[in-house]
Amino acid sequence: MRALILGGGGMVGQKLAHHLVANGLDGQPVEITLHDIAFPPVSLPNVPQVTGSISDAGVAETLAKTKPDVIFHLASVVSGEAEADFSKGWAVNMHPTWALLEALRAEHEADPSYRPRVVFTSSIAVFGGPYPDKISDEFLCAPQTSYGAQKLICETMITDFSRKGFIDGVSIRLPTICVRPGKPNAAASSFFSGIIREPLNGQEAILPAADSTRHWFASPRSAAGFLAHAATLDTALLHGRRALNLPGISCTVAEQIEALRDVAGNDVVRLIKPQPDPVIEKIVEGWPRDFAPERALALGFKADASFKDIIQIYLDDDLQRPPS
Amino acid sequence: MRALILGGGGMVGQKLAHHLVANGLDGQPVEITLHDIAFPPVSLPNVPQVTGSISDAGVAETLAKTKPDVIFHLASVVSGEAEADFSKGWAVNMHPTWALLEALRAEHEADPSYRPRVVFTSSIAVFGGPYPDKISDEFLCAPQTSYGAQKLICETMITDFSRKGFIDGVSIRLPTICVRPGKPNAAASSFFSGIIREPLNGQEAILPAADSTRHWFASPRSAAGFLAHAATLDTALLHGRRALNLPGISCTVAEQIEALRDVAGNDVVRLIKPQPDPVIEKIVEGWPRDFAPERALALGFKADASFKDIIQIYLDDDLQRPPS
Repeated sequence: MRALILGGGGMVGQKLAHHLVANGLDGQPVEITLHDIAFPPVSLPNVPQVTGSISDAGVAETLAKTKPDVIFHLASVVSGEAEADFSKGWAVNMHPTWALLEALRAEHEADPSYRPRVVFTSSIAVFGGPYPDKISDEFLCAPQTSYGAQKLICETMITDFSRKGFIDGVSIRLPTICVRPGKPNAAASSFFSGIIREPLNGQEAILPAADSTRHWFASPRSAAGFLAHAATLDTALLHGRRALNLPGISCTVAEQIEALRDVAGNDVVRLIKPQPDPVIEKIVEGWPRDFAPERALALGFKADASFKDIIQIYLDDDLQRPPS
Repeated sequence: MRALILGGGGMVGQKLAHHLVANGLDGQPVEITLHDIAFPPVSLPNVPQVTGSISDAGVAETLAKTKPDVIFHLASVVSGEAEADFSKGWAVNMHPTWALLEALRAEHEADPSYRPRVVFTSSIAVFGGPYPDKISDEFLCAPQTSYGAQKLICETMITDFSRKGFIDGVSIRLPTICVRPGKPNAAASSFFSGIIREPLNGQEAILPAADSTRHWFASPRSAAGFLAHAATLDTALLHGRRALNLPGISCTVAEQIEALRDVAGNDVVRLIKPQPDPVIEKIVEGWPRDFAPERALALGFKADASFKDIIQIYLDDDLQRPPS
């Protein structure tokens, strides 16, 4: 089986690549190709990396001609960037998905036995408040950001191309990924990871939101597992509704902090410095807090067991320990 | 006030033009321009008609440069055609909307005081079953046709361009328009009008679906009223959710037939010939049956009072009576 990972140089793309190298798909080995505009300095052995942008003319067509069995489409600019640069957001997050789908349709029409699985990383940003206490699988999409709008549009295209039989697509609405390894970024959600990651690395972390803030999380390890599961899922079970709310952990910032205390102790927790930022508080208020993702659970998607487990996964998989 | 009607040559576009000529908008007269690929033989006096296709390069930009205060965007290929010709459906129903929005954004950026109202005719085809008994304003969109997918995507774009302040858009999800004047068309929904219209014109009509079939209707007169109301609505009241389920009449085919009997008598009803068509029955089974459109009602959108009234509107507005 051959898999192409678009956005393969990003954090989740790399986690997925490692997952596929270690586990294959359904027990079968996978030949992986990574595609992205840039890659981390250390690369996976024997995994080809293709540098390029799917926004560039002809790139989607060239990639489609390689006829991968599975295409993981993770290539995207993040929420904050899509909001700050409107043209770039649509140019990267929508138009290339259309080009990719049309290119895959052309391959399908040339060879009707070719009908690749497309796994698209959508986001809970497709939702917008006011929310019920738990968002059900039947709750409307009402994006409050360009990023969310672009994700919803791509989902809708992927579902229609799938309904027509050109591809066999699944869109998975990832929870906020936490704990993200590496440096803080400009996303308003950055602090959810920062208040765990920085203290565990002996650094102070700013908490810009109230500790009663509730949000929806999955670990990077779970994200890789979701993607792999979506690649081999029996899509007949989706009954035409090919966008899925994934399971996650709903917890408050206070609960995040208590989990950190359990795992790492009071001295580490003391490195979190509350410093309310009304701008970030207002953005975060508009985000989903909790879901009842019954369909995804019935389809076998597995979330983390607790926020404590999410912290432990960071310690196991990502913490850069000083050489002993 | 200047209004541009895209799709101004179609049935609903013509009804809207007549409505605006007769009533203006909020009591003010409206200078109307109609744009379409073709127009009916009899045109409205003093209403310019521009023939062209918004799918053609540069057309959206040229139209945007005229800086209409209100743009009614009704231009679309119908559901059946979008399903039969996949490329054409997307080429007409999605890409020109993007081009139009980008062209309007360019005008806004050149002159920030320009922020036109865009009223987009979406459709209940954005929904897909299984349905609750009544579809609430918070029910998910899950289109089961390319037409529905294209409408949902345009809604999503319009909402995001509006959120950013480039335009001030509203998408209205029209019920099935009934009684459509004129000839039957290839749409699977054609019979809902045909079983009323043909008998009232002394002709037989085929009923291809069970008389227990329930569906959601509005008259052409109501459709014109919805569009005009959406053009002057205070969009702050939409709280960012700019796609609206409109009010309508939910009734079964049996109830349609009883209303026809009330209005026109048994002899007319006898012209309806049941002839079940499993293909049409299967399509119709996937359609919405009833709504609880609380938001649109609170915003002042007014539906027909009964299906009998819908028939009366056809008699008053559209029946071609023999010259007396």
